[in-house]
Amino acid sequence: MRMYDVIHKKKDGFALTEAEIQFFVRGVTDGSVPDYQITALLMAICLKGMTPAETTALTLAMANSGDTLDLGGLPGIKVDKHSTGGVGDKTTLVVAPMVAAMGVTVAKMSGRSLGHTGGTVDKLEGIPGFNTGLTMEEFFATVRRTGICLSGQSMSLAPADKKIYALRDATATIESIPLIAASIMSKKIAAGANRILLDVKTGSGSFMKTLDDARGLAKAMVAIGEGAGRKTAALITDMSAPLGFAIGNILEIQEAIAVLRGEGPEDLRHVCVELAAHMLYLAEKGTIEHCRKLAEEAIASGKAPEKFAEVVAAQGGDRAYIDDPERFPKAKTVCVVTAPQSGYIQAMDTEGIGVTALMLGAGREKPDDIIDHTAGLILHAKTADRVEKGQPLATLYTSDEAKADTAREKFLKCFTFSDTPVEKPPLIYCEIT
Amino acid sequence: MRMYDVIHKKKDGFALTEAEIQFFVRGVTDGSVPDYQITALLMAICLKGMTPAETTALTLAMANSGDTLDLGGLPGIKVDKHSTGGVGDKTTLVVAPMVAAMGVTVAKMSGRSLGHTGGTVDKLEGIPGFNTGLTMEEFFATVRRTGICLSGQSMSLAPADKKIYALRDATATIESIPLIAASIMSKKIAAGANRILLDVKTGSGSFMKTLDDARGLAKAMVAIGEGAGRKTAALITDMSAPLGFAIGNILEIQEAIAVLRGEGPEDLRHVCVELAAHMLYLAEKGTIEHCRKLAEEAIASGKAPEKFAEVVAAQGGDRAYIDDPERFPKAKTVCVVTAPQSGYIQAMDTEGIGVTALMLGAGREKPDDIIDHTAGLILHAKTADRVEKGQPLATLYTSDEAKADTAREKFLKCFTFSDTPVEKPPLIYCEIT
Repeated sequence: MRMYDVIHKKKDGFALTEAEIQFFVRGVTDGSVPDYQITALLMAICLKGMTPAETTALTLAMANSGDTLDLGGLPGIKVDKHSTGGVGDKTTLVVAPMVAAMGVTVAKMSGRSLGHTGGTVDKLEGIPGFNTGLTMEEFFATVRRTGICLSGQSMSLAPADKKIYALRDATATIESIPLIAASIMSKKIAAGANRILLDVKTGSGSFMKTLDDARGLAKAMVAIGEGAGRKTAALITDMSAPLGFAIGNILEIQEAIAVLRGEGPEDLRHVCVELAAHMLYLAEKGTIEHCRKLAEEAIASGKAPEKFAEVVAAQGGDRAYIDDPERFPKAKTVCVVTAPQSGYIQAMDTEGIGVTALMLGAGREKPDDIIDHTAGLILHAKTADRVEKGQPLATLYTSDEAKADTAREKFLKCFTFSDTPVEKPPLIYCEIT
Repeated sequence: MRMYDVIHKKKDGFALTEAEIQFFVRGVTDGSVPDYQITALLMAICLKGMTPAETTALTLAMANSGDTLDLGGLPGIKVDKHSTGGVGDKTTLVVAPMVAAMGVTVAKMSGRSLGHTGGTVDKLEGIPGFNTGLTMEEFFATVRRTGICLSGQSMSLAPADKKIYALRDATATIESIPLIAASIMSKKIAAGANRILLDVKTGSGSFMKTLDDARGLAKAMVAIGEGAGRKTAALITDMSAPLGFAIGNILEIQEAIAVLRGEGPEDLRHVCVELAAHMLYLAEKGTIEHCRKLAEEAIASGKAPEKFAEVVAAQGGDRAYIDDPERFPKAKTVCVVTAPQSGYIQAMDTEGIGVTALMLGAGREKPDDIIDHTAGLILHAKTADRVEKGQPLATLYTSDEAKADTAREKFLKCFTFSDTPVEKPPLIYCEIT
């Protein structure tokens, strides 16, 4: 088999066979296919697409290109959850302890922040002592002890995906539903859970700007999961506004703890309950209505915040911060941004708000930038809210005073106002199974 | 400017600006754009196309990426000629001396064989002593002395094209009219002629299998030439059958000499007269009818074969071989292939016939293969000819007896027969100006 012929076939719009896709992924992994052939094929895939069968074959080949976790030795059904990324999306911090508190094993690997979106691993590293770089042994030991683990991807999961993703990132071939779906699902499948719940974000702060694209991605991923023998479902949730009010690593941990305690923003609470209920449902804990009650109970009973404190302690973190979130360090510079006019907030450029947080120090512009865990912002109003000129829109937090002014400028450009009332966007659009 | 954005723009189907194309070609030339970004853009161009303005900008940027020849110091109008490649296409060996014999300067750089097609430089190297690797000084001195030079591309003409072509060849991005047109024309423009005649082949032995594709390529190249201030015309000529009867380097030189002497196959003679006439017309030697007469006169007067012998001698070759072509060495193994059935030859797989010659040793399977200049074949019948079972179809020549059998098998697969008479294909389809 020759890579040239594989590229030629895709360029002409034909579907590749499983053997051709495996040949490609093997060549990526062992380095026998040069980068310039990989990117030519990726561009052809971007422009000519892939059938569901091709996408599943690509996913499985990438999932099997490195270590795969066998969670078979752990008790019960293992449920994983993945978000396609958003601004203020701290749901994993809430949902994983909720589900684990109700007796379902959560052996979870998370990622870092990417562009304008946050990453669970970066957030967790805001907790003093918390170790996200577990070895395989530590990972399993933690799950066995506490029923939950929140690790980074310290193992060599899906190395072919890692290589392909880096090349896509350099060649404008990120935006392709089959490639995005295969990338996400290869890591989820390698990570070993039997059940996968996908949180596909749509709107101005997500990678899928339209509902149609989100639906396409969700369908593609559910099909892959099912094709790989993992029961998979997806919720399409709103990212036309940030989720909750807090954006930035420590600020988001504090908000997540509030929700675990039955406090916190209503939108975040609602989405977390729905996600947890669907995870419990996938874990066969009863009807979806019953699972909703279980999710509510995890919060009302105090079991969920306790489970979070437990996993923090199990991974070397200081649970005193979870028990008393006021202990977290605070940013040196705090500045309030006020509404430049009166009116209803018509829309928010949520990606722009994510970039604002990044500019304040909460994210990375370059891969080796160091994150300021105290940086970020707290919103005081969101889409459809009525504000009066001069009323606070948000509070910005940063350790670098010089960054506040440019961030404020960027932030103000993210709002449009209307004189007439505006409808709140729905929080959850639909479920794909 | 970022290469990422240039790729993204083309991927989305937008036209690139002249500045973006120059940035790309500069990056290819100085190595600052990595190969994996080059091939991603090339695939996007393949699938999304280029406007005429983009194609011209790409051509000029590649033409200016290395040495450019200034032919201004040579007398009169300089006419160049380029064939898109075919099987048995020895027209340069005939046409260049014809035109030079009529007083028009021909300072020509030619290429080597590529895949199933032959190359003028390989053919010329079949003449003992002939030097195709001239320095710039030798090139100009030869043109001044004899009014003609037939060199290889020893100088660094259009190095960006060379790099891009090698990557296209490895990534299935050869088949793209804008990229083919820009590649050919960048070298022609760098080679400095004021007038360019293009011989665009169409049919089973050419790279452009359909007349529509040939017409598209011819139009694209004529537009580029005119855009670059070089008067350019194209003839679309037939390659549904090999041109003439001889295929293989020395066999083709002998056939070319025969045509220069007023002998040789009628189809080859006709195409050569038309090409020479159009070159003379571009050089402003009169009306096209008058130029046809001049071309005929070049042969009838004996001036053309004498000019060929002159340029051979000027470039270190032994003109005794030109004066007496029987002196050329002959292949050790000669075998006759006979018709497997009676009938009219309905069609020839001319690419397959080119591959047969290559298998006999006349071409290269890998870039560093050594050519057997005596190898090749002589056809005894072509499309529309009536043959009886057992009658000779061709004579195969090779130095390696082991190759004859597999070549004969390949050759026989290249013919289809009909019980009813078949029409001869036209030799010249049309002219594009």
